[in-house]
Amino acid sequence: MENKAADLMVKMNLAIWDGQNKKFAELIEKLSDEQLLNETAPNRNTGIYLLGHIIAVSDDMSRLFDLEEKMFPDYLEIFVKSPDKSNKVFPPIAELKSAYYNVTKNLENHFKKFSTNDWLSKHAAVSDEDFAKEPTRNKLNVIISRTVHLANHLGQMAYLNK
Amino acid sequence: MENKAADLMVKMNLAIWDGQNKKFAELIEKLSDEQLLNETAPNRNTGIYLLGHIIAVSDDMSRLFDLEEKMFPDYLEIFVKSPDKSNKVFPPIAELKSAYYNVTKNLENHFKKFSTNDWLSKHAAVSDEDFAKEPTRNKLNVIISRTVHLANHLGQMAYLNK
Repeated sequence: MENKAADLMVKMNLAIWDGQNKKFAELIEKLSDEQLLNETAPNRNTGIYLLGHIIAVSDDMSRLFDLEEKMFPDYLEIFVKSPDKSNKVFPPIAELKSAYYNVTKNLENHFKKFSTNDWLSKHAAVSDEDFAKEPTRNKLNVIISRTVHLANHLGQMAYLNK
Repeated sequence: MENKAADLMVKMNLAIWDGQNKKFAELIEKLSDEQLLNETAPNRNTGIYLLGHIIAVSDDMSRLFDLEEKMFPDYLEIFVKSPDKSNKVFPPIAELKSAYYNVTKNLENHFKKFSTNDWLSKHAAVSDEDFAKEPTRNKLNVIISRTVHLANHLGQMAYLNK
């Protein structure tokens, strides 16, 4: 079914997701390894931790959207389930930057093929029964939430840029 | 025209806007005046400046959405056109907190009456001609952008909470 209004809204939400990722990519490109190892503010998360955190959260969308296997399944334990300074060994920064580009690009390639109905379909973490009651628990809502999550940490990581 | 998909998307985007505002309100309620006067990180914006900045940007939606006059027109000069530490005199924190609640509540009351078509109509800063070419430059897109802007600064203001 043609639905111009809904198609337009998907396009708007994806443009904001892409825009925040573009800003994130520009920031990590600009920051030196030394800057990324710094805390974003005294006693707060480091840049490297937040970088890994964003990758892990984006990569987890593969699971939520029933796509292929996650690219970096180990990152969830290191960068989401564990806090910064947990004594977990972080991958090298070059590897993390490359992981960020790969995960983001891979999602982008999948999203190009999503129809508006795909976006409105349920994500993997909600049951059929709950989804029937709450149709907002769809894939588009995941992207909207993840965009805000990314924006939240992007504001913090911008503090590494002196 | 009934358009369930588009109605659902409006609802989703507004829920995220409301959610970020709720977190912002909880944070400024929790922070002492002294904490709000602090810098969010060394040599970065203070909490009071970011609070005024968020109010001014939200209040400006009255203009963009052709609603009534702005409630705090002076804030634009102090908190958007001027940087922090510009030697401009800031209103007292109690006044700013109250202004934040009033502006947010006022927008919420207007948004309740917006139809999906209202959300897809052009905002005041785009010409009819440009809007015909770029229908994404509508009111819903303003809210989506403002949500990300708020999330960006909310991440920074969270650093005031020790």
